[in-house]
Amino acid sequence: MSTEPSGATAALAEAIGALRLVDHHVHSALAAPVGLAELGDLLTESDRPAAAGTSPFDSQVAFAVRRHCAPLLGLDPHAPIGDYVAARAALPTDEVDRRLLGAAGVERWLIDTGFRGDALVSLDDFGARVPGASVEEIVRLETVLESVARDGDAAGLEERFLTALASATTGAAGLKSVIAYRHGFDFDPTRPTPEEVREAASHWLAALEDETVVPRVDHPVLLRMLLWHGVDTGLPLQLHAGFGDPDLDLRRCDPLLLADWLRLVEPSGSDVLLLHCYPFQRQAGFLAQAFPHVYLDVGLAVNYTGAASPTVLAESLELAPFGKVLYSSDAWGPSELHLLGAVLWRRGMTEVLSRWVDAGEWSVADAVRVATLVGRDNAERVYGGRRG
Amino acid sequence: MSTEPSGATAALAEAIGALRLVDHHVHSALAAPVGLAELGDLLTESDRPAAAGTSPFDSQVAFAVRRHCAPLLGLDPHAPIGDYVAARAALPTDEVDRRLLGAAGVERWLIDTGFRGDALVSLDDFGARVPGASVEEIVRLETVLESVARDGDAAGLEERFLTALASATTGAAGLKSVIAYRHGFDFDPTRPTPEEVREAASHWLAALEDETVVPRVDHPVLLRMLLWHGVDTGLPLQLHAGFGDPDLDLRRCDPLLLADWLRLVEPSGSDVLLLHCYPFQRQAGFLAQAFPHVYLDVGLAVNYTGAASPTVLAESLELAPFGKVLYSSDAWGPSELHLLGAVLWRRGMTEVLSRWVDAGEWSVADAVRVATLVGRDNAERVYGGRRG
Amino acid sequence: MSTEPSGATAALAEAIGALRLVDHHVHSALAAPVGLAELGDLLTESDRPAAAGTSPFDSQVAFAVRRHCAPLLGLDPHAPIGDYVAARAALPTDEVDRRLLGAAGVERWLIDTGFRGDALVSLDDFGARVPGASVEEIVRLETVLESVARDGDAAGLEERFLTALASATTGAAGLKSVIAYRHGFDFDPTRPTPEEVREAASHWLAALEDETVVPRVDHPVLLRMLLWHGVDTGLPLQLHAGFGDPDLDLRRCDPLLLADWLRLVEPSGSDVLLLHCYPFQRQAGFLAQAFPHVYLDVGLAVNYTGAASPTVLAESLELAPFGKVLYSSDAWGPSELHLLGAVLWRRGMTEVLSRWVDAGEWSVADAVRVATLVGRDNAERVYGGRRG
Repeated sequence: MSTEPSGATAALAEAIGALRLVDHHVHSALAAPVGLAELGDLLTESDRPAAAGTSPFDSQVAFAVRRHCAPLLGLDPHAPIGDYVAARAALPTDEVDRRLLGAAGVERWLIDTGFRGDALVSLDDFGARVPGASVEEIVRLETVLESVARDGDAAGLEERFLTALASATTGAAGLKSVIAYRHGFDFDPTRPTPEEVREAASHWLAALEDETVVPRVDHPVLLRMLLWHGVDTGLPLQLHAGFGDPDLDLRRCDPLLLADWLRLVEPSGSDVLLLHCYPFQRQAGFLAQAFPHVYLDVGLAVNYTGAASPTVLAESLELAPFGKVLYSSDAWGPSELHLLGAVLWRRGMTEVLSRWVDAGEWSVADAVRVATLVGRDNAERVYGGRRG
Repeated sequence: MSTEPSGATAALAEAIGALRLVDHHVHSALAAPVGLAELGDLLTESDRPAAAGTSPFDSQVAFAVRRHCAPLLGLDPHAPIGDYVAARAALPTDEVDRRLLGAAGVERWLIDTGFRGDALVSLDDFGARVPGASVEEIVRLETVLESVARDGDAAGLEERFLTALASATTGAAGLKSVIAYRHGFDFDPTRPTPEEVREAASHWLAALEDETVVPRVDHPVLLRMLLWHGVDTGLPLQLHAGFGDPDLDLRRCDPLLLADWLRLVEPSGSDVLLLHCYPFQRQAGFLAQAFPHVYLDVGLAVNYTGAASPTVLAESLELAPFGKVLYSSDAWGPSELHLLGAVLWRRGMTEVLSRWVDAGEWSVADAVRVATLVGRDNAERVYGGRRG
Repeated sequence: MSTEPSGATAALAEAIGALRLVDHHVHSALAAPVGLAELGDLLTESDRPAAAGTSPFDSQVAFAVRRHCAPLLGLDPHAPIGDYVAARAALPTDEVDRRLLGAAGVERWLIDTGFRGDALVSLDDFGARVPGASVEEIVRLETVLESVARDGDAAGLEERFLTALASATTGAAGLKSVIAYRHGFDFDPTRPTPEEVREAASHWLAALEDETVVPRVDHPVLLRMLLWHGVDTGLPLQLHAGFGDPDLDLRRCDPLLLADWLRLVEPSGSDVLLLHCYPFQRQAGFLAQAFPHVYLDVGLAVNYTGAASPTVLAESLELAPFGKVLYSSDAWGPSELHLLGAVLWRRGMTEVLSRWVDAGEWSVADAVRVATLVGRDNAERVYGGRRG
C-alpha cells in the first residue's frame, strides 16, 4: 500500500499533534540514571529476567523507544538499543527528562504517588522538568491506610485512615485503588460493616506486630472499606483494571466483575475511572455506555502494544460514549514511557480516526473534536479545575 | 492512504448494495414522533441519562445517524444533530419511516413482538411502511408465559403456556428467549421435571397475587422450561447473547456458557441462533463451527460500533462456517436503527471482503456469494418459506 | 485501495518467503487418499456433519485450500472444490504430499504422534516426503500413560508410566498434554501426592477391567501427575489451549486459568508452550510477558481463520516478547493443512509487519529479524539441537 497520507490524515495529524494533553494517570520519573540492564527491566511488566537467550528489547515497547525516543537524543530512528543507552548516559538525567517529558506535549499531569515513590523524583522536581505544565496528585488509598497502620490499635484504624485521607487529599485531584492487584474484582460489593472492619483490622495489625513486616493491605474487607470511603469523598476514583505484573490474576481483573459494585455506588455521584483494561477494553466500553459514572482508558496497553496499539485504541472507541474515554500513559520510571504514551496515542488516534474519515463515516471536524475530548476535555471535566 | 476504491471494492459495493436482505431479528418502529431528548435516549442501550457534561450524541451510533440518515431527509452528511431532528420533525413520522425503512433494502423483516410493543406500530402498520416486503413475527417465549400467568393456578401454568404458545406461533417464523437478561447462561442445562416446574410456578404465582405486580418471569426453572418447550416446537430459536442494557450481567451472557445445553438439545433438530454476541463473537463463531444447529449474528453490535463495525463483522467470519452467519439490525424504535443496521452491514461487508479479495485470498465471486449467504440465503434456509 | 505493494512489503515478502521454518507442533499426513466427503470432514474441528443445506467448503480454511493448494496441483487459484479434489485424486497421495509439504518451506517438523496415528503415515514415511528436512517426535503424555494402563496394577501405574516415558522420550524433542480437552485448565495446580495418584489409578483401572473399554485418561489427578512428571523431564512441554473440537469446554481452556500452576512449575526451568490459544491469544501474550518459561503460538487458529488470520497474528505480537512467539501449523491429516499453516503465516506476517514498517514504527531489518525469531530461531533455542 502507498504510504502517502490522505488529506484527512494530514489534517488530523496536525490537529492531534498540536493538542495539549491531560495525562490523567501517570507516575513520576526515575531519579537515578538508567543503564542498559535497568532499561530492560523497566520496559516490561514482568519482575523476572528475560528468558535465557532472549532480549528484553525484543518487544513492542522497546522498539517504540528506539523509534521515537532516539531522535530526541540526536540519534536516527530505530538506532540500536546500545547506542540509545549510551546517548542517554551522556546526558544528565534531568536533561533527558526535560527533552522526553517536554516532547510529550502534556499540559496537566495527574500523578499517582503511591507506588515506589522512593525511586522517583518528587512532584516539585517533576514539575521543574515540565515548565508550564500543571502537576497534581492522585492519592492511592491503600498507601494511605498502610501509612497509619501502626499508629494505633485496630479499633481506631478506620478513623485514623479517614483523618489521614482528609489530609492527603487536600489539593489532590483524585484517588486510586489497586484492589485488582491485591484481591481481584470478585469481592463482596456491599459496604462492610464497622464490625467487619474492626475484625479485619485486628487480623491485619496482629500480623504487623512483627516489626520486620512491611504493611501491605490485602484483606478484602479493608480493601472494600477503602473503595467505599473513596467514593464517599466525591473525588474521581481510578481503578487499575486488566493486565499488570505477574502477581496479578488477570481473570479476576475483568472489569465486568465490578458490575454489582458499580450499581451500588452509582447514587454517590462519584466517577469511577477504569485504567488500562487490556484485554478487556471492550467489556469496559460496555460499562461506560451502561453507567453514567464509569469511564475508561487503555493507558498502559498503548505503550506495551506499541505499533499494534491502534487496534487497542479503536476497540476503546466501539461501545463507549466519546465523553467517557480518557488519555493516560501510566508511565512509571524512565521518561521514555511518559513520552511514548503521548506519541503512540497521537499516532494511533490519527490512524484510527483517519481510517473512519477516509471511509466516509466521520467528518474531519468530528474526528478532531473526539480526539480533543479524549486527549484533554473529558479529563478536565471529570477532575475539575487545576490544583497544582 | 488513497481512498480510491479498488476494482474489487467497486464490484462488491455494487453487488452488496443491490442485495435484498432478510433482517432476521428486529423490532417494530416507534409510533410517536421523536424529539432531540428522545432520540438521545433511544441511541444507547443505557436506561440512564448521559453523564453530566457529555452528549448522548457523541457515540458511534449517533455519528452514523448524522452520516447516513441525514441525506435521506435532505441534509448533508454529518449534519448537526439539531438540524437532523428538526428535519425529522418537519415530516410525518410514517413518511420518515417510509424513507428510512425503504432505503434499508430489506425484503423480509422477522419482528420480535415481545418487548414494549405498546410504544411501537403494529405489524400491519409496519408492513404498510415497507411495501413489497414480507413482515413476519418472532414470538418471545417469556412474553407468552407472562400473558397467561394469572389465568389459572400454578399446577396448570405449563399447560396454559403450551396452549398459548401453539396459538401464538401459528404463522410465526420463530421464537426468542431473553434468558440472558433474566438469568444468564449459567443455568442447569437439563430439562426441568414437572415437579420442579410446578414448584417454581407456585413460587412465581404467589408473588403475582399482589395485583400491582407486572408479571416478569425470571425463575431459572421456568426460563429453562421455556427453552426446552421452544426447542420442542421445531421452530428456530433466537437467544439474546452478549451486551445489552445495564440490567444484564455481561459475564453471564458469554455464549460459551451454553455449551452443555447446546449438546443436550442437538438431537432435537431445532436451530439455535445466537444474537449480537459482542464482545464474545469469536466464542460464538467457535460454537457455530462445532455444532450444526448453532448460528450467530452480530446484529446490535454493528449499529453500536458504527464506523468501527467492520472489525466486528470480520471477527464473526473467522471460525464460523459462512452458512452459519446471519444479518440482523436488532433495531427497536426509531427507524434510523432499521436503516443503519443495513447500511453499516453493507459497508462493513464490502470493506472486509474487499480487503480479502485485494490481498489475493478470495475471489470476487466467492465474496459476493458469501455476502448473499449472510445477508439473505442463510436466513431463508433456516426460517423457511414466508408466512407474512 | 491500491494493491500495489510498498517497498517494505516487497522486501518483507521476499525475506519471509525465503525463511525455512520450524513447525514446532504438527501431526503426520493422512495415509489414505482423500475424496470430497473426507476433505469436508477434515477441514473443520467439528466431528458433526455440516448443517443441512450448508457446504463444509464455505469456510475460511476451505477457501484457503482452493486459493493456495490448487495452483500446486496445476489448477487456477480459487478453482472449484470439485475440480480440486479430482486433481488430487489423479495423483498418488505421496506425490500430493510431496508437493504440498515441500512448498511449505519447513526445515524441521516436530510431530505429535499421540492422536490417531493409525490413520497417518509413519515418521519415516513422512520424512521420505520431505527430503532434507528434519523430522522429530513430540510425545503425548496421556498416550504414554494409556499405553501402560493395563500392564499391571494401580499401585505400579506411576512407575510403569515413568519407565515408559523415559523410553518414549529417547530422542524426542518435547512433550505434549491435552489436559485442556480432558479436563480444562481449572485443576488443582499442586503436585498430587503418591496416595492421591494411587487412589485415582485404582479408580481408573477398575473401569478398565471391562476389556472393551479403550483406555482414555481423564481423571484430574492423573492428568496433573502427567504435567508434573512432564515438567520434571526438562523437556519443553506443549499444552493445547483455546479452541478445538466440540468435546472441549472452551471457557475452561483460557490459559489464564493456568497462572497458579505456571508459578509453581517456574522453578523447574522447563519451558511451557501454549498452543493455538484462540480466542485467548492476548491472554496468552500476557503470560508470555509475565513468565520467562511461557511461550505461545496461534497455530491452529491461523489455518481456521484463513484470510482473517493477519488479525490473529497481530494480536499474538502485542504483549508477548518477540522471543516468546513460535510458528506451528497444528496440521493433522491432509497435507493441505501442513502447507496452509506456512503459507498463511508467511502472508499474514508480511501483511502485519509491512503495516508497522509503512507506518514508520518498525524498521525493515527489525521486521525481518522478528519474523525469523518467530518462524525459526525461537523454536531452535527452546527445542535445542536436532534429534531426527
